[in-house]
Amino acid sequence: MAGEKYIIEGDKKVGLTVRKSENFSEWFSQVVSETGAKLVDIRYGVQGSLVHRPWAIKIARELYSLIEEAVEDDGHEPHLFPTLIPEENLMKEKEHAGFTPEVFWIESAGDQKLNRRLALRPTGETQFYPMFSLWIRSYNDLPLKTYQSRITVFRNEMTTRPFLRGREFLFFETHDAFATHIQAMKQIETDKKIMEKIIRGKLKIPFYFFKRAKWDSFLGADCTYTADTINPDGRRNQISSTHDLGKHFAEAFNITYTDVEGKKKHVWQTCFGPGMWRIMAALIAIHGDDKGLILPTSVAPYNIVIIPITFAKNPEGTKNALRFSKQLQKKIKKWGHRSHFDDSEEHPGFKYNKWELQGVPYRIEIGPREAEQKKLTIVNRITREKRIISILELKKTLPKFYEEHDKMIEKKAEEYFANNTKTAFNYEELKKILSEHRGFVKAEWCDTTMKGKPCADKLKDETQGAYVCGERLGESEKPKGSCIVCGNIARHVVYIAKSI
Amino acid sequence: MAGEKYIIEGDKKVGLTVRKSENFSEWFSQVVSETGAKLVDIRYGVQGSLVHRPWAIKIARELYSLIEEAVEDDGHEPHLFPTLIPEENLMKEKEHAGFTPEVFWIESAGDQKLNRRLALRPTGETQFYPMFSLWIRSYNDLPLKTYQSRITVFRNEMTTRPFLRGREFLFFETHDAFATHIQAMKQIETDKKIMEKIIRGKLKIPFYFFKRAKWDSFLGADCTYTADTINPDGRRNQISSTHDLGKHFAEAFNITYTDVEGKKKHVWQTCFGPGMWRIMAALIAIHGDDKGLILPTSVAPYNIVIIPITFAKNPEGTKNALRFSKQLQKKIKKWGHRSHFDDSEEHPGFKYNKWELQGVPYRIEIGPREAEQKKLTIVNRITREKRIISILELKKTLPKFYEEHDKMIEKKAEEYFANNTKTAFNYEELKKILSEHRGFVKAEWCDTTMKGKPCADKLKDETQGAYVCGERLGESEKPKGSCIVCGNIARHVVYIAKSI
Repeated sequence: MAGEKYIIEGDKKVGLTVRKSENFSEWFSQVVSETGAKLVDIRYGVQGSLVHRPWAIKIARELYSLIEEAVEDDGHEPHLFPTLIPEENLMKEKEHAGFTPEVFWIESAGDQKLNRRLALRPTGETQFYPMFSLWIRSYNDLPLKTYQSRITVFRNEMTTRPFLRGREFLFFETHDAFATHIQAMKQIETDKKIMEKIIRGKLKIPFYFFKRAKWDSFLGADCTYTADTINPDGRRNQISSTHDLGKHFAEAFNITYTDVEGKKKHVWQTCFGPGMWRIMAALIAIHGDDKGLILPTSVAPYNIVIIPITFAKNPEGTKNALRFSKQLQKKIKKWGHRSHFDDSEEHPGFKYNKWELQGVPYRIEIGPREAEQKKLTIVNRITREKRIISILELKKTLPKFYEEHDKMIEKKAEEYFANNTKTAFNYEELKKILSEHRGFVKAEWCDTTMKGKPCADKLKDETQGAYVCGERLGESEKPKGSCIVCGNIARHVVYIAKSI
Repeated sequence: MAGEKYIIEGDKKVGLTVRKSENFSEWFSQVVSETGAKLVDIRYGVQGSLVHRPWAIKIARELYSLIEEAVEDDGHEPHLFPTLIPEENLMKEKEHAGFTPEVFWIESAGDQKLNRRLALRPTGETQFYPMFSLWIRSYNDLPLKTYQSRITVFRNEMTTRPFLRGREFLFFETHDAFATHIQAMKQIETDKKIMEKIIRGKLKIPFYFFKRAKWDSFLGADCTYTADTINPDGRRNQISSTHDLGKHFAEAFNITYTDVEGKKKHVWQTCFGPGMWRIMAALIAIHGDDKGLILPTSVAPYNIVIIPITFAKNPEGTKNALRFSKQLQKKIKKWGHRSHFDDSEEHPGFKYNKWELQGVPYRIEIGPREAEQKKLTIVNRITREKRIISILELKKTLPKFYEEHDKMIEKKAEEYFANNTKTAFNYEELKKILSEHRGFVKAEWCDTTMKGKPCADKLKDETQGAYVCGERLGESEKPKGSCIVCGNIARHVVYIAKSI
């Protein structure tokens, strides 16, 4: 095996045995596992239903807080809808009813049969919109901007993978209603901005914001917009979707308002879902290295871990180091940093490895000498460069350290993203790139309405599953020639990739 | 109707039509509803499955944060377990399998039958404990202290009521494992302290912490401890439970550790569940008045609402009032207060009523005169006393105002609680109190093991459902005479009440 060995400490096995660059898939499985960064335990015994461990929950709650704050700043109000959906509601919008093959059904409670089937929600549209028809009366009630957060949805997926595809997974969704389609489109631009501010800006995950082709739109939507990133194996990971729902659900659920002239009209609707577990997957996959996770400071549960260096032969110095560490932890917390003092029984070396695996940005080492000189050794997770600074400097220096750490993550991620976007000028070139490098391939395309579907089907068949991700929203990339598949006049510049 | 009338503003109907003291049940229904404090919408169409509205979610998340912080300070680590439980796990602990009559079953997905039944979790024991058997190896792994939060559980209850009893409801649970029963009992004391610190200390909800009689213990527990409060209708509301699980689940799920001498032993277990929706119900029911909710500052989503007083005939003054209000809102937020500037279209009078209904502790009124004099009128939700203070004083005064508000809530709640605890010296007296005043009745009791159950059954039959709540934990209330039902020697002092 080319990778590093497990580190054994007592009966504990910790570490990764493969390099990320050599076997990404195995690296990902290891890094999320109990011997890795301890994010999930896959031994629960129901396929696609995992136990999420403290480190995953602590990262996820930082991520949820960032997204919740952003949508509330944009005027969305939090709700909590039931998990159960009556079958008749799920079926009301005809295209949306296409979800049913993935739906879990409840038909009994105790030993009694229910008088109707209830679905476990696969997504929230058919929960929110019957209520929208009660809540919306006049133009004064518009726009109506709602969301629900930290909920679980259920889909009976055939293949499952931690964070990437589960049968039950953590969800976030906004649901909005507007008087006009222009307002709806503005909301889609805002959803894009939220993704840019939080996911690219704070989590350092690069993505393209696509307008999907018609044949890839959400069941019941006029059009779907997605943020897509790229995994280290070159496969596309869709990390958000926003749907322009048009009036489909408004008509199915009778959501109307009275306009200023007293006329009854159907509302226009959008919904936005950053894929929380998909974003977690991207965070793990894109930033991590052979040593484990690398977390940006915005979502790291701890940005600093303090590790005392103790010496059995120097009890006095050890005592001082522990006391100094404790004082420092108090100070750092008081300054408003998420930090942890690791005074557990393990050896310092074991602790270094553990916190590197978990991706904590900085560790502070404090031994008897540091305690005596009121200095500390601070080590960055990525560079592992050691710097010695005095405690007096620390408060002022920490924000600079954070910035430096986040910049390194950003630079690496953006470079890798740019390097994984290529342009193909003919079909052979496209197939070659897709078979060799993967990533995104920019190409000219005939049509993104249903007319273009035969080309997409052909492409998929002949490339073992490459998809048209769509055109980029807000970028005026104009075609100059012909469709890369059929050779007819190209109306669009699209991006093509294989999916996870 | 004795109560106040709805306030009509345009097509909006807001307010309560009954007094709390005259018809508590109807008052509770109204105050949680769309025309009240807008906490739930009951029109979702599945019994016991409600839509929880923004105000409820915002209160609940403050409450969750307080509880999460308290259990994490006590060393518990957050987890997220699946919603689905394999049937065989649910049935493993024999007594616990008694849950099955309440369980919703999933037998199919799409149009395919699953190869085994999956239950929607009614509670987490049979999820956590199979994993405990994997995670716990040696005494070094103990104590293991875990929790999960902000999750939904499912029980097919026959009768349902917002917050008090639902078929799906928000949950919180800790699950712990210890080497000794003494440590387990210490944890139960800590759980009591957490309830005292957060629920009594911050939310101002008084309660007794009982050791339940054996016949009322949780399915699979050796003994159950609960926090019980009293509703304004004199009925007991159980707001938390802690179970001393002994070794029952450890034996059923084979959770063992190797002790210092190398011997394999089963762990001792406890679990603690503050009933989040039950606590919400108590918060609403106990503190509210005829005008609506009254919220303590610890969980009020806004502690201050700023209402500009505008005059159509004084556009210049109105402009100044709006500008001053906005500046003030910024200042107050910067000081770290949860506040809201209500610049909606409604009249000030409508806004006063709305925010009183929702229980915001203080409102600040700002008109042209206030803007000119850099003063403000601050009004308390409970007393409705108006006080004029200068903006310079506000920062320093607000914490005092908060304290004053919380003290008033506490005083009223504690007095009412004390007044609703009576002592009965004979059976006739007990029955009389239970039929007239309800509340808790202290009485002497023969036995809280199964031997005392015939007395409890007799009591229940002859009083239309009065329960033995149990003995108080940590209070040495010693019996002096005979059992209030059978007349045999009393071994316990218990509290008796009717339940919700």
